[in-house]
Amino acid sequence: MKKLIVQKYGGSSVANIERIKNVARRVVSYRKKGYDLVAVVSALGDTTDELIELALRISKEPPEREMDMLLSTGEQISVALLAMAILELGYQAISLTGYQVGIVTDTAHTRARIVKIEVGKLQQELKKGKIVIVAGFQGITPQQDITTLGRGGSDLTAVALAKTLEADECEIYTDVDGVFTADPRIEPQARRIKEITYDEMLEMASLGAQVVQARSIEVAKKFDVPIHVRSSFSDNPGTMIIKEVKDMEDALVTGVTLNKNESKITICNVPDRPGIAARIFNQFSDGGINVDMIVQNVSHTKQTDISFTVSKTDSFKAMRITKKTACAIGAQDVLEDSGIARVSIVGVGMKTHPGVAAKCFETLAKEKINIEMISTSEISISCIIKKKFAEKAVRALHEQFGLGKR
Amino acid sequence: MKKLIVQKYGGSSVANIERIKNVARRVVSYRKKGYDLVAVVSALGDTTDELIELALRISKEPPEREMDMLLSTGEQISVALLAMAILELGYQAISLTGYQVGIVTDTAHTRARIVKIEVGKLQQELKKGKIVIVAGFQGITPQQDITTLGRGGSDLTAVALAKTLEADECEIYTDVDGVFTADPRIEPQARRIKEITYDEMLEMASLGAQVVQARSIEVAKKFDVPIHVRSSFSDNPGTMIIKEVKDMEDALVTGVTLNKNESKITICNVPDRPGIAARIFNQFSDGGINVDMIVQNVSHTKQTDISFTVSKTDSFKAMRITKKTACAIGAQDVLEDSGIARVSIVGVGMKTHPGVAAKCFETLAKEKINIEMISTSEISISCIIKKKFAEKAVRALHEQFGLGKR
Repeated sequence: MKKLIVQKYGGSSVANIERIKNVARRVVSYRKKGYDLVAVVSALGDTTDELIELALRISKEPPEREMDMLLSTGEQISVALLAMAILELGYQAISLTGYQVGIVTDTAHTRARIVKIEVGKLQQELKKGKIVIVAGFQGITPQQDITTLGRGGSDLTAVALAKTLEADECEIYTDVDGVFTADPRIEPQARRIKEITYDEMLEMASLGAQVVQARSIEVAKKFDVPIHVRSSFSDNPGTMIIKEVKDMEDALVTGVTLNKNESKITICNVPDRPGIAARIFNQFSDGGINVDMIVQNVSHTKQTDISFTVSKTDSFKAMRITKKTACAIGAQDVLEDSGIARVSIVGVGMKTHPGVAAKCFETLAKEKINIEMISTSEISISCIIKKKFAEKAVRALHEQFGLGKR
Repeated sequence: MKKLIVQKYGGSSVANIERIKNVARRVVSYRKKGYDLVAVVSALGDTTDELIELALRISKEPPEREMDMLLSTGEQISVALLAMAILELGYQAISLTGYQVGIVTDTAHTRARIVKIEVGKLQQELKKGKIVIVAGFQGITPQQDITTLGRGGSDLTAVALAKTLEADECEIYTDVDGVFTADPRIEPQARRIKEITYDEMLEMASLGAQVVQARSIEVAKKFDVPIHVRSSFSDNPGTMIIKEVKDMEDALVTGVTLNKNESKITICNVPDRPGIAARIFNQFSDGGINVDMIVQNVSHTKQTDISFTVSKTDSFKAMRITKKTACAIGAQDVLEDSGIARVSIVGVGMKTHPGVAAKCFETLAKEKINIEMISTSEISISCIIKKKFAEKAVRALHEQFGLGKR
């Protein structure tokens, strides 16, 4: 039987017609090597952002079902054009939307979860000898409503397809040579990571490394699908995301990440009573908003401040909900600060090496950067700081933990 | 039971966010009057042309299945945005794509014919009290491939839905106040036609009047669905397209049309043998190309010239097929002339009044405009002339047949 490879091409890899033709040539080159191929494609360049912009000109909080209807067109355009480009090269190809593939999701619009994939039609087309081009990021509910899988959802489409089709390889193509110890645009000394564990990658993705979507790594981890992250602009090897890395014990810290897409919301003078925090954050989970990094001040009076961060895309909705709840519980005021950044260090090594946190805080202190909020996990430490210090903090931590080129 | 109205909004009516909001207000105003509403929407402004342009940068003859995949996104964007705009006004609305409505077509991509419409889901949504926004121009084959219905296909969607849903009214909104005796941009004296028969409208649409798509009028005629063509920018009455017009006998000519979107193809020195013409034009019907106005010169030798016109969008494909056939039958050369225009006069009156053709040719002669090809039907006369004389010819004929404002 032929080997099957699932490839995913991100928005920057198909940002314009020349790049689409380039991707077509790459896909065909694998065809010539004898592979069966499924290519998952994102929307062209900034298409998704442009569509969101259109929607926001109609409504500050666009209805989510209609948002999915709108955004799913981006990937549909990409797959049609890529299929055309492959056909133009003289190879058989067919494009399929999420619902044509049979990617069935739940009804959580704009962040749907894949329930199952009915790959019958896709496999039929592969058997006919066609290269199958799949629209990433989208699915369909059992009621035939179009859904999307959240930011970076095309990665999830690729990983889920690789698992379901039992593909031999899963490649995620992007515009950089893999996963780096820090964003090379911020830290020129950043090094490509050859191998990284699912857990570390998950943490890095959650904390701002935008190379691969966090949820797709969760799925890859669950079903042990190795992912090769690499560049569509070169033939260089990239980063393998796998279960276990042999020389794992050596590195204390694997990478430094930065996230500038969050807002801090503070509820001032909250009555200090049991159950108040639950009441506030229940509203968010009902609204489908992920709240992160919750900090409650130690209270000396009968009142306290509660701060938390949310993604900027959710901040309008979050402020609306928070103001309503604040009013109901008798809190004084709700403040939003969008001038913050989260800088984090990630590494499985820190599980077994104490003192990493202290070293991290010291490093920032030495740069005179004030830490506003802190949160930690087993393999990461995150600090919320003023946005203007973000790049400085990344460079300082990168150097402190010896992540640079040797 | 509530009255049901099907409204269709063309690309110019939803060309930008302001106009979409304007359409939303119009739809809601009918809602307030107590109507059940289905709004069929075209792609925003020039979206379809922009998508075609992208495809042509990849392939001179883009594969038609993928073309439909690509083009159908235009309407999907429109319906999502219009639904958002209506929801923003506080009214219930839901957008549906062609396949979600259940518009089943044959497999003739880029010019599919509607086979049936399964309106179950649509009617469910109407019963829930929602305004249903339907993506025009598109359908789905029984094999779940997306199809489009050809240029102006949204009109067809609207008329077919009005028939299937047994709607009380079918309105087609455009950027002009209805159907005019000539294009008002060419002939300022042009007058709005209050009522016009299906047959005349069909002829005018086929001959270049772009207000309503020809095939949709065929369907409207077949099922006797009266259409009200009107402007989305005003509350003026428009043109009623109906079975019979009372004062029909009075008008010799109802309108003058112009079509500059055709090319003339000439096969030179074709051997003058029976069956040759059939052989040539069979190739076109296999390729799905509509050939129009075929003229074969009277032959004094053993050879003849054959000329015909095709739509410019088909001309590349048509030239390829023609050259191949010309070679096979031993013809000398194939020439394409895209510098032509077709000017036509239409009117049921000419059935019973001889001399209209003569008057038409005389008028052009008086203007020193040479006629290259002529074709006639029961209720129309068309002349192919040089494109540079097109506007002059329209104005001369419009005046000659007394069509101007009184």
